[in-house]
Amino acid sequence: MVTVASKAASEPACHRRTCFTAGESMSLDVFFRPRSIAVFGVSRNPDKPGRVLFDNLLKSGFKGPIYPVNPQATEGIDGHKIYSADKLPPVDLAIFAIPAPLIPEALSQVGGRIKGALIISGGFGEVGRKDLDEQVMALARQHKFRVWGPNCVGIMNPHHKLNAVFLPTERVDMPRAGGIGLLSQSGATICALIDWSNRMAIGFSKVASYGNQLDVSESEIIHYLSKDKDTKAIGFYLEGLKDGSEFLKATSSIHKPIIALKAGRTQKGISAAKSHTGALAGSYEVYQGVFRQKNIALAGDVENMLGALKLLDLHPHGPAGRRVAVVTCGGGFGVMASDALEDGGLEPAVLNSSTLKTLKNHYSEHVVVGNPLDLTGTATPDDFAFALKAVDRDPGVDAIIVVFLFQLPRLNDEIVNKLKGLVKKPLVVVSPPGKYADGVNAALIHDHPLTFTPEQASAILKAVISTR
Amino acid sequence: MVTVASKAASEPACHRRTCFTAGESMSLDVFFRPRSIAVFGVSRNPDKPGRVLFDNLLKSGFKGPIYPVNPQATEGIDGHKIYSADKLPPVDLAIFAIPAPLIPEALSQVGGRIKGALIISGGFGEVGRKDLDEQVMALARQHKFRVWGPNCVGIMNPHHKLNAVFLPTERVDMPRAGGIGLLSQSGATICALIDWSNRMAIGFSKVASYGNQLDVSESEIIHYLSKDKDTKAIGFYLEGLKDGSEFLKATSSIHKPIIALKAGRTQKGISAAKSHTGALAGSYEVYQGVFRQKNIALAGDVENMLGALKLLDLHPHGPAGRRVAVVTCGGGFGVMASDALEDGGLEPAVLNSSTLKTLKNHYSEHVVVGNPLDLTGTATPDDFAFALKAVDRDPGVDAIIVVFLFQLPRLNDEIVNKLKGLVKKPLVVVSPPGKYADGVNAALIHDHPLTFTPEQASAILKAVISTR
Repeated sequence: MVTVASKAASEPACHRRTCFTAGESMSLDVFFRPRSIAVFGVSRNPDKPGRVLFDNLLKSGFKGPIYPVNPQATEGIDGHKIYSADKLPPVDLAIFAIPAPLIPEALSQVGGRIKGALIISGGFGEVGRKDLDEQVMALARQHKFRVWGPNCVGIMNPHHKLNAVFLPTERVDMPRAGGIGLLSQSGATICALIDWSNRMAIGFSKVASYGNQLDVSESEIIHYLSKDKDTKAIGFYLEGLKDGSEFLKATSSIHKPIIALKAGRTQKGISAAKSHTGALAGSYEVYQGVFRQKNIALAGDVENMLGALKLLDLHPHGPAGRRVAVVTCGGGFGVMASDALEDGGLEPAVLNSSTLKTLKNHYSEHVVVGNPLDLTGTATPDDFAFALKAVDRDPGVDAIIVVFLFQLPRLNDEIVNKLKGLVKKPLVVVSPPGKYADGVNAALIHDHPLTFTPEQASAILKAVISTR
Repeated sequence: MVTVASKAASEPACHRRTCFTAGESMSLDVFFRPRSIAVFGVSRNPDKPGRVLFDNLLKSGFKGPIYPVNPQATEGIDGHKIYSADKLPPVDLAIFAIPAPLIPEALSQVGGRIKGALIISGGFGEVGRKDLDEQVMALARQHKFRVWGPNCVGIMNPHHKLNAVFLPTERVDMPRAGGIGLLSQSGATICALIDWSNRMAIGFSKVASYGNQLDVSESEIIHYLSKDKDTKAIGFYLEGLKDGSEFLKATSSIHKPIIALKAGRTQKGISAAKSHTGALAGSYEVYQGVFRQKNIALAGDVENMLGALKLLDLHPHGPAGRRVAVVTCGGGFGVMASDALEDGGLEPAVLNSSTLKTLKNHYSEHVVVGNPLDLTGTATPDDFAFALKAVDRDPGVDAIIVVFLFQLPRLNDEIVNKLKGLVKKPLVVVSPPGKYADGVNAALIHDHPLTFTPEQASAILKAVISTR
């Protein structure tokens, strides 16, 4: 374990089969785009992880063959023929949701017939069973398969119709296909991120819960995503890095935006991280320095991270600069937005004379033409559409924050359709929750990054701009 | 206009009838607890502010007589007899939702028969019509009535069944009765605050949108709320103060927590505030200094302010100290919470040996007993209930943050009932949105401050603790 600032060791002391080198990373296709899958641990009990995983693979519409494995279930389960390990045909990916001590034996039976082993089960090094780690990696070296995990919730690839996560879809759906690659060592955290993202209709290219990194490391996954044609931007929840030098190597040639949420920043956080993922989190200052060099943005919290990822899913290149126009129907929220922009090092855009003239000619005198542009409490959807079009066209504007206060009766759900395709530049919607607002917000959040406060809107833009 | 730091002038140059002095403040009862009301501007058109106001008063169950006034509607409206100004019986409160230029004439007709005039209409000093301001105040002095507004959205007193706000209840309901007094010059802002508060089931004692402060000032309202038996804590959205010395006087003897959201903190914000409410916002450093002396907490954003008010509605005295226990089912959210506590100057509580023993005896080995207390992804509602009860009893714990990740299948809506009455100390719930989470969160948020992120939970506790 080294900090991110450490130099690449000339001969890394690595117990993995293959320490990550750039040329090898495409081998992760076996996890993200397998052509065939076996699931070890498919039970009659619908709540068992292996069974949930098998059901998820079926529901997600995965196109290749899926072989359920359970030597005890000789009669089949729900009409599916059940395999034993010795009868299993060769597959790209074997997924293991059986007790850790049984996994080496299973791998020794099928190791020659698989290309990758995704080990969901915990109970390895993280609870002191280094012997199991060593047995698994010895088999991987012998049979030349890669190992993902152990101790993780799995993998999703919506483009490949692959939901290899053991949480029931009643709790967490597979996201829609899109441009964001998301990765995290922490399983519960990535599940919460996916679920919240689904509320925001963020499109994902890959979701990777990678657990203990026995073989495949976070750095290798990031490198893989940097080359992946479906991935436009990357989200990364981390507490510490397994190998700082490997991470520096992996991120050295990335030209995609990365939004990172680094937990374990403070003394108390670092100590909590050590209990959680065993991460030696290292100094946050070092992370800040390295991430700034690599144009990796550090998100302030989960909401900020997901808002930034939503914006990047819609606008992979982000705003062209840091000049932000604010359009509002409530002066107070305009003032808060102005404060937030200044706090975040962003610039309130200066609207040009042509835009100002267009706006002044259009609105009655009580509209405060400037930035913030305050349409006041009588604003209609048309008033907003006109204003947004005008500021979007202004070459002095790089991004827009629009504030909708649906407490005001003339603003209504027509705004949802009016906004479709209207604004070309990155746009963040601020709309506080409420009786009427909740329904419209649920529709708006599909098409736009939507937050409850101007402060979050500014933080989202700041994070995205920091990746440039 | 003076900054908050200015000294009380010995003879304030005040155009108001009565510059605020402590002894007079109970006169605001005429606005918050009127026994009878007249509404000027009740129209056949259901969307006109006067009509909405009249309908709201009827719907809210106000107990006294309500007289609709409209000299044009001689035949009555929807079965209600309509009055002209000259036939109006004496009332405590006359509400005006008619064009500003017509108000002095109306006041000259009824000035002798009213105790207070709540002027909703804009079009006074804020658009340069100082002449109308002067006419209104001359009549107030002559007839000895008080003036509220003009240019505001109105007043609510849920304890008095008074909804004198002109926004339709389809957009903003009157809050339930409770302990929070809320005030703001900005009308659209306070409406958004009320609506969001209703989502959180915050109970209010008074809601006061006070507009231009022609007579009744923010300071007089705060002083009134400080003496009001229904008000346990105060929320205050402000951009600038009308009169700093008056504010210092009003807050000098307050022993109730105040959570203030001060917009116009930065250069850009100050300039936006000037366009919005005409506030000369003054230096934020001065506000910070004065507010710290007065134990007024400065909230970081609207979400933070409302979360703190929800906590104060439930626990008017807040936590006894700054030692916070974190209980989670996801390690990552525990790490984020630890970081957030340290960022906010709060202290992770050190659980005592008896609590640690109780917890270690109860849970299996994979539960990480400490602070954060990580129940891990298999946590059930019972697991949470046991943990919360144990940390609540620990004398080293002043407040609790609990993290629910409803993506995990063993945690379900049973937690809503399990939590009822379980924890005596201030508790903030963190639960990110999601497919299953949204439904449970909608139930949880009625009984607890609920946020999506550990950072907001910590900010809420910090704000409440800062009022001590």
